Amino acid sequence: MTTNLIDKLIIGNSTKIVFLIMDGLGGLPIKADGPTELEAAQTPYLDELAAASVCGLLDPIGYGITPGSGPAHFALFGYDPIENNCGRGLLTAAGVNFPMTDKDLFIRANFATMDAGGLIIDRRAGRIDTETNRRICLKLRGNVKLSENIEVFFETEREHRALIALRGDGLNENIEETDPQATGKPLVQARALVPEAQKAARAIAELTEKVKAALADEPKANTILLRGYAKHRTYPSLTERFGLKAMGIANYPMYRGIAKLLGMTVAEETNSIEEEFAVLEKTYQNCDFFFVHIKPTDSRGEDGNFDAKVEAIEMIDRMIPIITDLNPDVLVVTGDHSTPAALAAHSWHPVPVLLSAKTCRPDRVKSFGERDCLFGGLGRMPTAALMGVALAHAGRLAKFGA
Amino acid sequence: MTTNLIDKLIIGNSTKIVFLIMDGLGGLPIKADGPTELEAAQTPYLDELAAASVCGLLDPIGYGITPGSGPAHFALFGYDPIENNCGRGLLTAAGVNFPMTDKDLFIRANFATMDAGGLIIDRRAGRIDTETNRRICLKLRGNVKLSENIEVFFETEREHRALIALRGDGLNENIEETDPQATGKPLVQARALVPEAQKAARAIAELTEKVKAALADEPKANTILLRGYAKHRTYPSLTERFGLKAMGIANYPMYRGIAKLLGMTVAEETNSIEEEFAVLEKTYQNCDFFFVHIKPTDSRGEDGNFDAKVEAIEMIDRMIPIITDLNPDVLVVTGDHSTPAALAAHSWHPVPVLLSAKTCRPDRVKSFGERDCLFGGLGRMPTAALMGVALAHAGRLAKFGA
Repeated sequence: MTTNLIDKLIIGNSTKIVFLIMDGLGGLPIKADGPTELEAAQTPYLDELAAASVCGLLDPIGYGITPGSGPAHFALFGYDPIENNCGRGLLTAAGVNFPMTDKDLFIRANFATMDAGGLIIDRRAGRIDTETNRRICLKLRGNVKLSENIEVFFETEREHRALIALRGDGLNENIEETDPQATGKPLVQARALVPEAQKAARAIAELTEKVKAALADEPKANTILLRGYAKHRTYPSLTERFGLKAMGIANYPMYRGIAKLLGMTVAEETNSIEEEFAVLEKTYQNCDFFFVHIKPTDSRGEDGNFDAKVEAIEMIDRMIPIITDLNPDVLVVTGDHSTPAALAAHSWHPVPVLLSAKTCRPDRVKSFGERDCLFGGLGRMPTAALMGVALAHAGRLAKFGA
Repeated sequence: MTTNLIDKLIIGNSTKIVFLIMDGLGGLPIKADGPTELEAAQTPYLDELAAASVCGLLDPIGYGITPGSGPAHFALFGYDPIENNCGRGLLTAAGVNFPMTDKDLFIRANFATMDAGGLIIDRRAGRIDTETNRRICLKLRGNVKLSENIEVFFETEREHRALIALRGDGLNENIEETDPQATGKPLVQARALVPEAQKAARAIAELTEKVKAALADEPKANTILLRGYAKHRTYPSLTERFGLKAMGIANYPMYRGIAKLLGMTVAEETNSIEEEFAVLEKTYQNCDFFFVHIKPTDSRGEDGNFDAKVEAIEMIDRMIPIITDLNPDVLVVTGDHSTPAALAAHSWHPVPVLLSAKTCRPDRVKSFGERDCLFGGLGRMPTAALMGVALAHAGRLAKFGA
């Protein structure tokens, strides 16, 4: 409801907003009375920012809900994360720049290794390299055709991951995923979860059999695991909704996909954080909203490596002056969700946030950390409300009512 | 909306959750600069828990709303307290284990004393004992029959309180309550508040006259006051919604009734807090969710007795090790609402809460009290969101979205 109100109050100006999103930023202590990863990290630049900022804690989806990266990012950009939720296949398709049509059903595929008895023995096919993936996709394009007038597309994402798109009439996405999620098990049968998905379920079964036949001579990648089914879907862009000329800077395809789905210009491909910051500097004059996605904070959290996550945070801290030297009107530093090393997984805990702007009302937070942010001027708020607050601080929202 | 989302994310495991509900826990100072009841109480065990927990303040219904015990408990168990609100009669019927049908209209009845002029002179009939209540209900069963094919049932609750159930077609609950809520006044006429309630209103009038006739020779209980009209209604259970095998432990029928309505196993009848804790220990291996209801904190608040409420809190504090020795995965200590002795009534003030779990993110709260909880990591949140947070900390919620 509030989201819609904001859309109606948009006024244009030339202010610039930067969202620095440290994926999985929020954490937990690993010992009683200990600090979280962010509290443990030496972050003089972030602390200096926090002291002059308004801080708080964000709930990505709702109390107690552990978010996937997709909905958590939708929330960051001011999109209701529940009603706009989509299958991962769509994010992957957008991320690899697949030319989508509204007849498409997108599937996230892992190449995997199956033994002679049909049991999965490696869910990532020994993490084949991206080149091998390209070779296999080429082979599949030449050898796999489906019946019932369904076209099939194979696109390399990276390592063992690929996008498969089925194009045809009436392909419903409500099908069981074939990934057994564990080794030592056979593929799960792709049964229809609703009657309208019978056709798509047949296509998935045919696809799986034909892929297995085509890859029978592969030493590692001799089968596929399918998940994240998603019909094509479009979203109103950040330009349409908020009048923003937005730039998405991310190393990972999925986040590039989210940026693309929301109408951001997606930056050239980058492979390091240094490259991402270089793109920010290079494109800074051309756009007015910048989404900079930082992955290692989440990856090290997922690894369960507290110290490595601390180091990732400290590494980003040292690069903060690159952003502050650009002097954006609004700088937001936060995460999409928490990924505490203590849990080695995404979690439901709220995410620390700081918003720096000339127009912010400073609070008493002097250090950027979970416990300090509890006393911040933003309080605890839904992530989806953040975009409105950022737009307000950028002078981009008109008064409501007389 | 979030409530429904949580229902969809449930995963089963063997973790255990204990909700220790100190009824009316929240309080107020009785002198300027003084402590609340909870702040005044010496609570070493609760303070130790608070220091290792995440704390906060709960709003049972909404800002400024003083809750009845019914909706406040619905909220605690994750049920929207407004849309699930029901008349007290239904809670009483469930509490006395009345075999309900969907043709039933339930009424909470007080036996009362009326003078020769028809004015109520004691709204509780001198607090007759439960035995006298039973004798009177037996007498009424033999002497009161209603017309229009309506069956009537009289069931003893305790002391001066009884359940009356009317069973028949088309009995609408929107009728004026007959309890004048003050002495020196006559019964209020049970008029229909909507046209569809004419039949029920006639039945209530007939019931009242026939009860008065049957009880004309009683020295104290010579009339009845009727309130809490409620049609039969069912709720999805905690098992259906959250996959919990739940146990309700309460000395008072109403809270046993709420537990029963929400599909909890209701523990054997208990008559002291010691007995309640003994039941918790005895049933701990058989269930995974435990609602332990503590009444005296509310009763002493309602009495306006600050010191007695402090003592009730201290008495519970000394019993906390009985729970912590069981080592539940999640322990929540809170109240259903505030009952400040200073007001001698329920109030709208938010209720302190602590949630102890290995997966909680600790905050800086070192002592369990209203002012300390203001700085807690849960912030101020709706009571109805608590169940989702508890389930998350128990590892019982799957990730939302990819």
